[in-house]
Amino acid sequence: MRQGRIGEFALLRRLRNATQIPHALRRAVLAGIGDDAAVLKTRPGRVLLATTDLLVERVHFDLACTTYRQLGYKAAMANLSDIAAMGGLPRFVLIALALTPRQSPRDVDALYAGVAAACRRAAAAVVGGDTSVSRAGLFVSLTVLGEASPAEVLRRSTARAGDHLYVTGTVGDAQAGLEILLARKAGRRGRGTSARETAYLTGRHQAPTARVREARHLAEGRLASAAIDLSDGLAGDVRHICEESTVGCLIDARRLPLSAALIAHARARRRDPLAYALGGGEDYELLFTVRPGNVPHVERLIRRRLLRATPIGRITPARAGLRIIGADGSVRPLAAKGYEHRLG
Amino acid sequence: MRQGRIGEFALLRRLRNATQIPHALRRAVLAGIGDDAAVLKTRPGRVLLATTDLLVERVHFDLACTTYRQLGYKAAMANLSDIAAMGGLPRFVLIALALTPRQSPRDVDALYAGVAAACRRAAAAVVGGDTSVSRAGLFVSLTVLGEASPAEVLRRSTARAGDHLYVTGTVGDAQAGLEILLARKAGRRGRGTSARETAYLTGRHQAPTARVREARHLAEGRLASAAIDLSDGLAGDVRHICEESTVGCLIDARRLPLSAALIAHARARRRDPLAYALGGGEDYELLFTVRPGNVPHVERLIRRRLLRATPIGRITPARAGLRIIGADGSVRPLAAKGYEHRLG
Repeated sequence: MRQGRIGEFALLRRLRNATQIPHALRRAVLAGIGDDAAVLKTRPGRVLLATTDLLVERVHFDLACTTYRQLGYKAAMANLSDIAAMGGLPRFVLIALALTPRQSPRDVDALYAGVAAACRRAAAAVVGGDTSVSRAGLFVSLTVLGEASPAEVLRRSTARAGDHLYVTGTVGDAQAGLEILLARKAGRRGRGTSARETAYLTGRHQAPTARVREARHLAEGRLASAAIDLSDGLAGDVRHICEESTVGCLIDARRLPLSAALIAHARARRRDPLAYALGGGEDYELLFTVRPGNVPHVERLIRRRLLRATPIGRITPARAGLRIIGADGSVRPLAAKGYEHRLG
Repeated sequence: MRQGRIGEFALLRRLRNATQIPHALRRAVLAGIGDDAAVLKTRPGRVLLATTDLLVERVHFDLACTTYRQLGYKAAMANLSDIAAMGGLPRFVLIALALTPRQSPRDVDALYAGVAAACRRAAAAVVGGDTSVSRAGLFVSLTVLGEASPAEVLRRSTARAGDHLYVTGTVGDAQAGLEILLARKAGRRGRGTSARETAYLTGRHQAPTARVREARHLAEGRLASAAIDLSDGLAGDVRHICEESTVGCLIDARRLPLSAALIAHARARRRDPLAYALGGGEDYELLFTVRPGNVPHVERLIRRRLLRATPIGRITPARAGLRIIGADGSVRPLAAKGYEHRLG
């Protein structure tokens, strides 16, 4: 049970250097990396939000498809997105690595730089770290702490029949980006998409953006009745809201927001873009519900471009189940794995 | 980058069932396992302490030497000990697992039960979890959040020359326990120790106790000037205090608290028990410093049996370096790896 702490203190120094505490948080971080625990000040009247994730090489990421910087950036964004989906402001980040001999100090620096870049965008601070050796593969564990006022918290369990269902941004892009990267790894060239579209889609996979600002707009205005971030795919994640809230839903597939790049990518592969939109994971968009009385407020935010979101359906009573209106207008059950309808 | 969430929700249900929120914390945990993040209430005027650790199979633990329950218990205690060493009260625990096909649901339950048992002893609540698959080995990531009032926090960096150095409990036992377990794994029988001594030593390795109560006594009474928990071994951990505080130390090896079981174990192996006491890791005892004016208060706590601790030396100016008075009364430098002096 002895720890293999090879170079741990050198690594923690690197982490400390790579992740400066943002100015706005300096008074909140009484002690950061280097003691037994970080010492953090939260504000009175606020609740703390806490989430943790463990990313495993060859399960969650493939070093042939990602740089270390992208890996750190994406791992941080995925956790920041969990805090956003609760309506919170991300504040503090802790990162633990298990490193194999294949990772050079430069690789670790790049990973930390990616985490730091994501945290900077969300105005969060890295306050703790742990490193150890791994004989198996690279493991990245992240914990993010955020804050919200108690009344602002966005749960999964508080949707009601009659609520309108919205999603931010566009959906399915990350899955298309992953396909392009895997094809590239296998030595196949992309087809049917321009260089710009390809870069957009791979960027959506490698460097997603947590919707922190959008979620805070919704939380501060008490505009959303429930929310979740899209990590497993829209069809899977809407199921979490429906199960936790004991409701059903009716999604209109014709209204799902699709990027032009995704449509081009899907067409070139003779697949239905809706399959990506419903089944593709890791978009890190926000899926949220809105009580009918708040719909005009949300629509006003969208018109003013303070919120980029699209209404995609309604919450229904639980007995109606999870349903989808297809491209042909017919209503059918929403499969857990999304929607697969091969074209041609 | 897709998640292999095989049975994740079933596992989270098991985690939720295995780790009931202690009664005293029910009002602080507004939302636990099952949403994007836990929602936690901290008390005004308190600071938050946060620590994270990633444990790797075959690096930090060996499934031939530990049960799953012991693994969970020990992993939790190691992190609770970090909060104790900061003078804090552990409050919230998050646990992330990467599981191989070798772990059965019953194994996972046992691991969770171990975490829950350790948390119960420290009155902390498990509030978050994540599970994923691993093709390599079992990985356990733990994050513990604690609380303290700002003035109570025990740092590593605040020792001063003239301070007295204390350690709780006895030291070196966990290393001896590990040796017994490894010998057993190799099919060799122990010798020189009674069954009771063997059970004591292996218990110290497999089920350590975080010194939460002792640390709170010291923190509330403002009695310690600096503290660290013993994870790497006394010789290595006192170095952290000396480096962070820019001081030296003079440890009197003749005063190190040794258990009778350790002495018997070391003698049977013709080794010096001091080698275990100085170099053996994972005792999770507290090493702390006391200003001369507070020594009578600490001695009173010890006499009243409110604190089980032993004075083992003094903090000196940095220029004197790290030194030790050996069994023969001679002063020599304290080696980073401890003390090795083969007998016979």
